Parts: sequence; structure tokens; C-alpha cells
Amino acid sequence: MSRATASGQVRQILDMNAFRPGDTDAEAVERRLANLGAASVLFYREPIEMVSAEGAWMTAKDGTRYLDFYNNVPSVGHSHPRVVEAVSRQIAQLNTNTRYIVSVVDDYLEALKAHMPDSLSNVVMTCSGSEANDLAMRVAMAATGGTGFIVTETAYHGNTALVTEASPSALKRGSLPETVIAIPPPSVQHSGEDIAGGFRRSVEMALAEFARRGITPAALMADSIFSSDGIFADPPGFLSEAVDAIRAAGALFIADEVQPGFGRTGDAFWGFGRHGITPDMVTMGKPMGNGFPMAGMAVRPDHLEQFCADVGYFNTFGGNPVAAAAGKAVLDVIRDEGLQENARDTGALLLEGLRDVARADARVADVRGAGLFIGVDLAEEETGRPDPDLTVKVIDGMRSRGVLIGAAGRYGATLKVRPPLCLKREEAEQFVEAFKGALS
Amino acid sequence: MSRATASGQVRQILDMNAFRPGDTDAEAVERRLANLGAASVLFYREPIEMVSAEGAWMTAKDGTRYLDFYNNVPSVGHSHPRVVEAVSRQIAQLNTNTRYIVSVVDDYLEALKAHMPDSLSNVVMTCSGSEANDLAMRVAMAATGGTGFIVTETAYHGNTALVTEASPSALKRGSLPETVIAIPPPSVQHSGEDIAGGFRRSVEMALAEFARRGITPAALMADSIFSSDGIFADPPGFLSEAVDAIRAAGALFIADEVQPGFGRTGDAFWGFGRHGITPDMVTMGKPMGNGFPMAGMAVRPDHLEQFCADVGYFNTFGGNPVAAAAGKAVLDVIRDEGLQENARDTGALLLEGLRDVARADARVADVRGAGLFIGVDLAEEETGRPDPDLTVKVIDGMRSRGVLIGAAGRYGATLKVRPPLCLKREEAEQFVEAFKGALS
Repeated sequence: MSRATASGQVRQILDMNAFRPGDTDAEAVERRLANLGAASVLFYREPIEMVSAEGAWMTAKDGTRYLDFYNNVPSVGHSHPRVVEAVSRQIAQLNTNTRYIVSVVDDYLEALKAHMPDSLSNVVMTCSGSEANDLAMRVAMAATGGTGFIVTETAYHGNTALVTEASPSALKRGSLPETVIAIPPPSVQHSGEDIAGGFRRSVEMALAEFARRGITPAALMADSIFSSDGIFADPPGFLSEAVDAIRAAGALFIADEVQPGFGRTGDAFWGFGRHGITPDMVTMGKPMGNGFPMAGMAVRPDHLEQFCADVGYFNTFGGNPVAAAAGKAVLDVIRDEGLQENARDTGALLLEGLRDVARADARVADVRGAGLFIGVDLAEEETGRPDPDLTVKVIDGMRSRGVLIGAAGRYGATLKVRPPLCLKREEAEQFVEAFKGALS
Repeated sequence: MSRATASGQVRQILDMNAFRPGDTDAEAVERRLANLGAASVLFYREPIEMVSAEGAWMTAKDGTRYLDFYNNVPSVGHSHPRVVEAVSRQIAQLNTNTRYIVSVVDDYLEALKAHMPDSLSNVVMTCSGSEANDLAMRVAMAATGGTGFIVTETAYHGNTALVTEASPSALKRGSLPETVIAIPPPSVQHSGEDIAGGFRRSVEMALAEFARRGITPAALMADSIFSSDGIFADPPGFLSEAVDAIRAAGALFIADEVQPGFGRTGDAFWGFGRHGITPDMVTMGKPMGNGFPMAGMAVRPDHLEQFCADVGYFNTFGGNPVAAAAGKAVLDVIRDEGLQENARDTGALLLEGLRDVARADARVADVRGAGLFIGVDLAEEETGRPDPDLTVKVIDGMRSRGVLIGAAGRYGATLKVRPPLCLKREEAEQFVEAFKGALS
């Protein structure tokens, strides 16, 4: 692959780890491109037409079954019967908005809040994580009087205008506005062994730069497992110093739990839980309804009041009874099937299996993560440099071995290992075997 | 009601026509406020707990059945069995994102596009009308190089940061940014009998003001039935001159069809269809999935390309197969049950009935609309001034007569008549009777 092509490929991977179709001429792909146009983001150069899915498995039109390690939305398992039943029952009975009281909505909110720090006792329900982060940024501005946001350098927080400005990985051209500063993720490469101190110093440098610009900081916003940056989970607790630093400057900490939330990290229900911190706001989305479009923001009542004094906020679909039923079923399944514990145990098994591969193959430069959220760095054997070409080959090779997986990180050279939380031990083993096969 | 209270009441009505609970002590209300906090927007001072809904009717916990003339989301009827069946079937089979090809998604997009002008051949699916308008504004900026938006003075286009700035009715404090200019809606009060010319002149004055400010215009964005402004539908075609004016300035016309779309106006499938114009972009939402959270933007491929050159846009839940199944069922029901025709015919009956009331009662100052989207101005008998106090009394009086209805307009003195499209003649008659009763 030429340098230009490789660079383009990296760019495509960074563009949310997706590929546009290249040399495939399938009618279905043409049809999709005619419908979605330039906004079409199909996975793989030869995209897959899917017809059904169950548990950790997706089935293509040609009958091929794929083990899904890519899509972290159907987190309790594709087509989970309890979620299906809850949605089907509620949508047949009542689907309306929060201008009326509907008990299932408050039942859900109370069940959700039972997992939250007591201080975050208000929840605003939205349709997407993007809407939740858009709102959280505005609440932070209203609560602090500031406008400055600190994010990590390959962060992705969503697709609205405001949130895109705080999502370096979404920008193909142009630069961040002066109100947003991107700092390196909390990795050994950037901070050496003192991850906590290094990340705190990055936050402090950004605060100093805001001071130089005459901008009051509003918040540090971070995905607490840094998924788009390449997954940085350890050591637990490292976020605490940075959170202290941002608060010392009068600004807030927004925990974007869209990726790590709902038990995925195994150790805790939320990613921030691993760090012993209480965020000022928590945003959540993707796995919240196992695919039913829903998201939300947990917030301190006084902060929400400050925002609502200026703006009338209402979300037509947010907090509808069907979403609440889906969300309640997800919480029930996580509890009843012990999915957080399974994420911890099966995740540990998977991590160990991948580390075995790393010990035998120098191209597997690092394996790290928490629970069922693992990052695998792929590098050139001789130089140790991130290898996006190899990453693409491994992704394609795993596809041909029936495993779906994507990439992340600044160089697009980190496999983002993110299966449903119901993953079985034998499925984890199957993944490791496919990985070995794709590397060979 | 004191002047201060009346003014506060108007403010509350303008805040999306909703009331906070006042003197009710119901436990359910306390619970809701504890959960949603300052963002809670409950309808009526004594809010209603709903348990089920079907067709045009909602049933409260105490057994009271209400005729729903307020909620235009379940547009083909609450709990419509074909939508319920489509969602229940698809969610049990496959719910994933648009990185994979799933035929129901393209089936839906093609069915939707069959209702669109040929030029708008790309559709971006989102979760909410807010996300669709947020995206449309950015596409307009990318396509024109401009940043200026013209909206109407009580417009509401959604809840994201960018769209809120273009939604005068959402602002409780502060003012619009210099990139947004609000113009009067196309009403007789503002334009005399020459609605088309008056509205065009307002657009031209806003363009002149942008020139003075050194701002390049990006778009005129208008709900083509001006629902938040008080519902202005006639004469059909009046938008054409304003659209010509905005295009002459190198800017675009965004038709926000979240309210009037999907057959509601009776005369046409989209509100803009009544005006003989082809928008540069069409945004849609609320009734699109009959309550399933989904929305979208139809756009010219070249405009979308210009936007996507700068920003990687992806919407996790947008265009998921369950939304597509819901949306397809909605389109099928509108066609098979002749709901656009019913909106036209039952709407005409309702309009006539309301005009009969107006002829007999000077407080009913004006009745206007198209199909099943009708505005009813309530005014002081002596002065003819908009009467928000009377409007609140009528809304409460109709509630006690089993009819749900809200208000809109700059003064909060316009009843927003917006029942499901499946409304029966006898239900329209029942509404007129309840209105008469509430006035007496």
C-alpha cells in the first residue's frame, strides 16, 4: 500500500473506523450510496448485508455468521428477548412524551439513579449520546460562566455542531475552535509511568493556555475509558488528579459514559467508578436501550436549574415510555444475568489470551483494557511504530474468519475489542484464534 | 389573574406550551420532579398520569379518556397496530447501524424519497428533528460559506446548542446571536393582505441587516406552517417570493417539516408542497415513526458532499432497521388508510365547525389552517387584543371536557389544533362541542 493510500486509510479508520466501499459492485451498495450519499459510512471495502442477529452473533444475507466484537450498542446481546418483549409490550400500550406522567418512566429513572452518585439526582433523557453531550456542555457553561472545554486529542463525543467542535476525531479539515483544547490521552507514551500525574499536567497546561487566551474553562470532558484515543484504562484511579485540577480552576468534570457505561469495564457499572471519582455530570447512550434510540445526562439539580433559567429545554422523544421500558429491561438483564461480572471474568480471560498472542508476536505491541473493552496496538516489527496497514489487514483477515472488529486511536492502529457483555468463554477463545489466524 | 401572573403564564405557554405543576400534591408529580428536576415540563397545573392510548384517545390512570388534539407525534393514531407489529417484528430480528447494509433501511429510504422532490435524493437519518435541523444548518453553512440564518420570531426548531440559537421561543433570557435574525411570521397583522410580499420584504430586510453586520447569509429556515408562531397556512404559495429572495442572496431555503409533514396539511404530503416550491433541504421528525424516535434530512447530494468534506458525520441510532420498519409502516398506513385525504376532509369539517363558533363569539378572533393543523386566536371581546388568560381557561376547560389541547403564538393566545390524522368526523364534532362548552 502506498504512503498516500495508507495515510488515506488511516484517515478513514479515524473517521469512526469505517471504510467506504471500493471495488465492490454489489447492487445493494449502489442502492445505499444513492440513498445516503456522502454521509454513507459502510464498514469494509466489500460491505456486508445483514439479515438477523442474536446474542454475540450477526447473520449475513449469504448465511455467514459473524461474531460481533465491534458493535457495543446491543450490549446485553443482539435481539435480547427481554428487551424485545419490553419494547413490544409498551409500544402497543402507550408511547408519549414527558409532558404526562407515565409510571414506567419514573420506575426507570429511579432504577437508573440507583447506579448513580447521590449528587447527580436529576436525569434529562435524550435520544442520543450526542444530544446528551451537547446538553452537558451547555449546562457546564451555564454553571461555570466559562466556555472552555478540554478533551483528548482523538476524542469523539458526538455529531451535533457544538459536540463536533469538541470531537477532534470528527474533523477532516480545519482546526478546533479556540474554546476547545485537545490534550494527549493518559498513555505511557505521553506520560511515562506516572499516568495520573502526566494527565493532570496536560490538563493544567490546557488551563494555562485558556488563561493566556482569556477564556474561562467550563469543563474537562472525557470518555472514562478513552475509547477513540485507543482505550486507556489503567491504573484505576488515574483520572482523580486531573479532576482535582479542573475543579481547582472552577470548572467541571463531565464523564462521557456512552462507551464504558452499563457494566462494560467489569470492575464498575460506570467507567468513572474505576477511578474513585464523582463526576459533575454523567452522559450515557449507546448500550442504554440495547439499540432502542435513547440516551441521557445525570446532573446536579442546581446545575440543571442554572441552565433551565435561560433556556426552555424539551426533548420530544426523550424519556418516552417505550425507551423507559427498554432501558429498564437492559438494567434488569445486566443484573439478572450477571453481565458486569461476566464482563470482568470473560474480559480477563480474553485479555490473557490476547497477551499470550502478544508474547509470541512482536507486532502485537500492547494489550490493555478493562472488562470487555480492550485495546490491542499493532506495530511494525522492526521499528515498533503504529502500523495502520497491518491493522486493516487484520480487520479484513478477521472478517474472513467470521469476526467483526474495528480500530481506534490516533494512528488507527489499535483494535477496539468491544463484544456484547453476554460473551461466552468459548466465543472469547474463538476471537483469540481468529486474531492469531489473521496475524499469520 | 394579575398582570404579573398573566405575563408569567404567557411565558410558560411560550415555553413550549407547557405548565409546571402548581398546587397539586400528587406523589407522582413529586416523584417526577425529583427525577427530572428543572427540566421537567409537565402539561397542566394538575398533570395527568396516562396509562394507555389508542387512535385519537389517551386513557388516564383514573380511567378518564381524553381526545388527544395536542400530541402530533402519534400521527397515524396512538398504538397503531401496523406500527406496533413492524417494530416488534424488526426489533426481534435485527437492530444495528448503517455501517451494514440492511434491506429494510433502503426500502424505507426509497419509499420516503418517492415523496420528495427529485433533487433531494440523499437522506441522512437522525434520531430527532433537533439533530436534523442542527445538521441542516451546518450543511447550509458549508454549501454557502455563510453563517447567517433567518427564522420567524416565535420559531422553534429544536434543542441542540446550534438550533436553540435559531429558536427564539426557546430563549427565556438573553438575545439571539448576531448570526440569527428573527422576522415576523407571514400573518395579516404583519403584512396586511399581501402576505407573500410582506414576508418577502421581511426576508429582504433581514438580508440587508446581515449585509450591514458583515454576515453572509446561509439560509432561511422555516416551519412551512409556522406552528410555533401561531399557524399561518394561507394563501398557498405565499412562501415562494421569500424563497426567491433568499436564493437571490446566494442562500438556501430549509423547510422544517417536523410539524406539517407526513400529510397533516391535507393538501400536500409536505407543508412546502402547498407553496409550489422546492426547498434546498427538508428536515422531518415527530410523526415520522409515529413515536419511534427517528428523524431525517433530505438534501442535494452536492450540498451533502460539501459538508462531509470537512466533517465525518455518523449517527449511531439514525437509520437503524427498527426505525426504518416503523417509518415504512407509517408511510403504508398514511397511504392505505387515506390519512392525507382524511386530514383534508375532516380538517375542512373541523375548520368550518370552528368558524361557526367564531361567528357566534367575538372572543374567537380568527380560525385558520390547513388540513388537521388549525390555529384558533382567542382575544379580549372589547379590545380584540390576544387573550392568554382566556386561552389558559379554555385549555383547562377543555381538559375537564376530556379534550387535550395546547397553545402557541407570540402571545400564547392561539389554540394549536393538531389531532392524529386518523381523526373521525364525530371526534371533530366532539372537539367543537367541547370548545363551545369551554368558552361558555
